[in-house]
Amino acid sequence: MDNARTPVMDALVEFVLTLETASLPPAVVEAATRSMTDWLGTAIRGAAEPLAGALAAVITAAGGEPQATVVGRRLRTSALLACLANGAQSHALDFDDTHLPSIVHGSAPVAPVVLALGEWRRASGAEALAAFVAGFEVETRIGRVLGRALADRGWHVTGVLGHFGAAAAAGKLLGLDAGRLAQALGIAGTQAAGLEQSFGTMSQPLHPGKAAMNGLLAALLAREGFTGSPAMLDGPGGLPATFLGVTDLGAAVEDLGKRFEVLENSTKPYAACHLTHATIDAARAIRAREAPAAAAVEAVSCRVHPLVLKVAANPAPRTGLEAKFSVAYCVATALVRGEAGEAEFGDASLRDPAVARVMARVTPEADASLGVGAARMTVRLADGRVLEERVIAARGMPERPLTREELEAKFSRLGEVVLPAEHVARLAAALRGLADLPDVAELAALASA
Amino acid sequence: MDNARTPVMDALVEFVLTLETASLPPAVVEAATRSMTDWLGTAIRGAAEPLAGALAAVITAAGGEPQATVVGRRLRTSALLACLANGAQSHALDFDDTHLPSIVHGSAPVAPVVLALGEWRRASGAEALAAFVAGFEVETRIGRVLGRALADRGWHVTGVLGHFGAAAAAGKLLGLDAGRLAQALGIAGTQAAGLEQSFGTMSQPLHPGKAAMNGLLAALLAREGFTGSPAMLDGPGGLPATFLGVTDLGAAVEDLGKRFEVLENSTKPYAACHLTHATIDAARAIRAREAPAAAAVEAVSCRVHPLVLKVAANPAPRTGLEAKFSVAYCVATALVRGEAGEAEFGDASLRDPAVARVMARVTPEADASLGVGAARMTVRLADGRVLEERVIAARGMPERPLTREELEAKFSRLGEVVLPAEHVARLAAALRGLADLPDVAELAALASA
Repeated sequence: MDNARTPVMDALVEFVLTLETASLPPAVVEAATRSMTDWLGTAIRGAAEPLAGALAAVITAAGGEPQATVVGRRLRTSALLACLANGAQSHALDFDDTHLPSIVHGSAPVAPVVLALGEWRRASGAEALAAFVAGFEVETRIGRVLGRALADRGWHVTGVLGHFGAAAAAGKLLGLDAGRLAQALGIAGTQAAGLEQSFGTMSQPLHPGKAAMNGLLAALLAREGFTGSPAMLDGPGGLPATFLGVTDLGAAVEDLGKRFEVLENSTKPYAACHLTHATIDAARAIRAREAPAAAAVEAVSCRVHPLVLKVAANPAPRTGLEAKFSVAYCVATALVRGEAGEAEFGDASLRDPAVARVMARVTPEADASLGVGAARMTVRLADGRVLEERVIAARGMPERPLTREELEAKFSRLGEVVLPAEHVARLAAALRGLADLPDVAELAALASA
Repeated sequence: MDNARTPVMDALVEFVLTLETASLPPAVVEAATRSMTDWLGTAIRGAAEPLAGALAAVITAAGGEPQATVVGRRLRTSALLACLANGAQSHALDFDDTHLPSIVHGSAPVAPVVLALGEWRRASGAEALAAFVAGFEVETRIGRVLGRALADRGWHVTGVLGHFGAAAAAGKLLGLDAGRLAQALGIAGTQAAGLEQSFGTMSQPLHPGKAAMNGLLAALLAREGFTGSPAMLDGPGGLPATFLGVTDLGAAVEDLGKRFEVLENSTKPYAACHLTHATIDAARAIRAREAPAAAAVEAVSCRVHPLVLKVAANPAPRTGLEAKFSVAYCVATALVRGEAGEAEFGDASLRDPAVARVMARVTPEADASLGVGAARMTVRLADGRVLEERVIAARGMPERPLTREELEAKFSRLGEVVLPAEHVARLAAALRGLADLPDVAELAALASA
């Protein structure tokens, strides 16, 4: 296989190795900084979720050199295990960012590696940002070609492709040369996993945690001379070929280094699956305009891209996690309560009879003519009125980004569930100037409980 | 999903929970004991391979509580990382056992869990054997249904299905209840990975190491209340459905607890891919009979099952690892040197011009009428003579098992590369009486360098 041509791998490796924060367009640095900020908020908040307790118990029992911080907890462990915990925590509420063109939650597998290695190896903020962009671009560019098809087949795209992003970020921070970076990406790809069957269970957020840990493991092993297949992306038995029968990933590296996927990252204002957001926007707009009483709602029809229903069609969720993947629930809570924050996926909201009443009347329909971030909604009321709303792009998408204030408000709201407000404020300030931060370990220290 | 019927998962969980060494047929205990013995020999020997050095460096840097021994090395670490290293070491030479009906290297993902948890939790030999049989049956029964199809698609069956075996063994030794064991199998399945693209690189033996570690992680997490999908085997998005479109795994649990797959395990007398063994037997038989000089060999034709060529068709291997997956090389070295032990996959043999000469004259052909353990060989000599040999079942297969002496001779030969002969002899003795061993930690102590 070594003699086979590997143009996609070669291009990605070259891109990762030559990338420097100082040479990036300012908008890319800003987008990466925002993504790291949003990620850290979700990861800290995730420390209060039951999954974090289970992970911490296993990690504490396993032990490890105190190389890296499990954020939002009082726990330092090996960089590998910190990646596992932080990646899982950050996706625990499904409140982290999404790169919709690839359906990859781009930060969850990559940022844990950046933070853990950054702390362990005392990287600067500029080095961390370069590694973040490297990892983000690698996984989302592959995802732009494979993401939809992977999801259609039942794979959790973030879990699968996050392995490449994590390995790229780790290889960048470890200073691997081109040959070893290609090995690392090969070692990462052969570990790639994550099934949609796990959606609605703690194993779903486990996927990016595992991707982060596995990608870091791949890079650490490659540094020691461990080998994998550099043809993992281009080869006849590579990941695209084996998972999907795709043998040409060339489109993934077009405009590499010129166009940046991180500019198309979306930030979630709502604590649910990103694919539900346009329906939440529509419902909130109708509520803001007309404030229909729950008892008056006769029927809600909403048209969405078919993928939305593939992922989030649960008609009767019983847990908060399931509810995040239920268009019916999200629409109902947005119509009834006007919000879809963390509280709306807690027990009180889940047991709210008004929400349940509306939820039973929501009929989502697939409409392939709509974008994945779009929705059309019609609410029919008991008095015969019909309320309509159209959303082209949900809030938080690149077309309608959150303001810096909205982003930091979300960060503070999430962070303060777990950490003292003063630490959260200092973290927000440090993240604002991430590109000039001398030492990433400072972030980790502030993020420790 | 929780309401969905999960008959296969339920049956496997029930089987694992109720299994006890004292109630097993003696032949099953003997087969499991032999498998554990053969596995430990390969794992110790693997400690001398370069991959083990790379793993040990990464593991040492990560650190961990000294719960379990990395065999053949002076290293104790967390049970998780010991599983990683021992699983990879045991498959490093591709000299470990194979359950041919499933194409699963059955011990490599399971035995590391048994040894690591056995040492950490001071299990008895009888408990260890029960966990081993539990894990072996689970992965190979699933493999009997899915293995061939997985391999055809480009998956490394051992890597993928080993996750279930490892989780079952871990769950058994951790004393999980039925609900948590099902969760553990779900958490394990969503981590399942391993691509044939990695064959011939160190990532291939990494697969069972990762399967062992991931399966143990799954069980440790499930014990803490972490959730996965209990419908991972039966569900519409489960592993069989997503990987292969298979929606009924019912055949995997027929005769469960009555018929034991471990009785069909094969032990390798040769240090190459099991699928090459029948061709090695044929070549050695011809050599024993006629001893043709390498220079006199004009052409070697050998007919094998198509799967053999799918996996081991490399016509011109350049490394020992590649050579293990080359029918042409294996046949050549067996004809020229009469052996196919570890030495035959080292540099001297790889550079042997006589081997190279014969290798270039070997033409493997697919013949679907043959079993995967069969071969037909025709050697044409310069003087016009034609030598023929037929192998129905390769040495080491259930139909032609190695004797206990041959098995222990292999164990000693492998073990003594790394450990003092006295330790190896004591290990062999302890393994002979494994069912009555009071404490598995004794094995681990003897297996430490």
